[in-house]
Amino acid sequence: MKVLITNDDGIHAQGIYHLKNTLEQDHDVTVVAPDTERSAVGHAITLSDPLRVYEVFKDEKFFGYAVNGTPADCVKLGIKSLLSEPPDLVVSGINLGPNTAINIIYSGTVSAAAEAVIMGVPGLAVSLASFHVHEYEFACKLTRELVEKIKQFGLRNGTLLNVNVPAVKPAEIRGVVISRQGKGRFEEFFDKRVDPTNRVYYWLAGKRMHLDTDPDVDDVVVTENKVSITPIRYDLTDHEMLAQLKEWGIER
Amino acid sequence: MKVLITNDDGIHAQGIYHLKNTLEQDHDVTVVAPDTERSAVGHAITLSDPLRVYEVFKDEKFFGYAVNGTPADCVKLGIKSLLSEPPDLVVSGINLGPNTAINIIYSGTVSAAAEAVIMGVPGLAVSLASFHVHEYEFACKLTRELVEKIKQFGLRNGTLLNVNVPAVKPAEIRGVVISRQGKGRFEEFFDKRVDPTNRVYYWLAGKRMHLDTDPDVDDVVVTENKVSITPIRYDLTDHEMLAQLKEWGIER
Repeated sequence: MKVLITNDDGIHAQGIYHLKNTLEQDHDVTVVAPDTERSAVGHAITLSDPLRVYEVFKDEKFFGYAVNGTPADCVKLGIKSLLSEPPDLVVSGINLGPNTAINIIYSGTVSAAAEAVIMGVPGLAVSLASFHVHEYEFACKLTRELVEKIKQFGLRNGTLLNVNVPAVKPAEIRGVVISRQGKGRFEEFFDKRVDPTNRVYYWLAGKRMHLDTDPDVDDVVVTENKVSITPIRYDLTDHEMLAQLKEWGIER
Repeated sequence: MKVLITNDDGIHAQGIYHLKNTLEQDHDVTVVAPDTERSAVGHAITLSDPLRVYEVFKDEKFFGYAVNGTPADCVKLGIKSLLSEPPDLVVSGINLGPNTAINIIYSGTVSAAAEAVIMGVPGLAVSLASFHVHEYEFACKLTRELVEKIKQFGLRNGTLLNVNVPAVKPAEIRGVVISRQGKGRFEEFFDKRVDPTNRVYYWLAGKRMHLDTDPDVDDVVVTENKVSITPIRYDLTDHEMLAQLKEWGIER
């Protein structure tokens, strides 16, 4: 298959290097990724500024295209301008840090896969559930397998797969579970500080709250050293509330 | 009620000025908005940089807080640091440009209201369905009414209202309809250009495609000069695909 690879940690991240090495064993791979880290950019796209593209080489070999934009920009630009024909699949990752529960909404990694499905191309987002432990072996192996499954079964139009892999050695992975998005979020605060010129600034801080206990919820699955695979779809209408709103007497 | 007002067109936009003037007739209003335009930022939040806040005055009166961040940053910072107690409601707008169908995913306006509901505060996003026509009268009147309705009926936890108002005179508004998110998206291309120093750059361009015809879809409603009100919820699991995935033989 023709596979477009992107991420939100930037083209120089270790995760995208491992992902490319893995998938190019079976597929025709093109990397289009942000020139620097673009974490927590959500589904941002660049409208007011021009996008620049430059070719990145590693060990004198062409590695991929770096773009001064967001992950969603990379997918759009890759599909519309850089690739000679549309890819069969977009794979985003391997992200450092979990993209489960509320994180999915902020995630540039997942947004890249979402941008793919918006453009009619199947999308797969892969994250390691740690910000520090570079344990890519199982994630690579599973991604390779999932790409084959997507080729075999297909994904329904508009849906992407969001995969989170515990950052442990392959022998410690205890299972692979199809899961639902959890409700876990952050308990946040702003650290109010003073800079060297005595001006105030604020820095976002906080800790993750796991609010779920059901064994098929993404957060819970990962905590148990199992891989979580969640089908994600951006159908945002709240149909239950829709019925309630009809009672408000605001239609006319 | 205590109302936090924000937007994605920036604190100097006309829409936020009209919104504040309207809501402060009945409510205790605080403006916390980006210092410049942050359109199409999606649900971006600022993690790697400090946030700065400065007070903006209009006609020698305090108007609100400007933040060098995204709409979601403004809501977080407002609720956690700038307001003395949490607001009863966050209203985001009045945005210039429709936030219907696929636009909801890219929208900073809707993301601000989404950030509110993530933090447990009801959220309301209001947009004018034009990028050029500053016709705020009906939007203001309806927002005032909707805030009263929210006070009376409440919104269910996790759900925001996304309102799109045709940019026409009040007499030309033909109705108010509870709607669903449409599937309309953009047919896009990148304009490849050369700058004055002969370097290539790309600029995103495209036209909106309306792909729906059902009369209760947000895009269709607005095209008919009616106001669209859609309940939005970020529950992203694709439950239908979840059942299909169980057949793939990937769980273990």
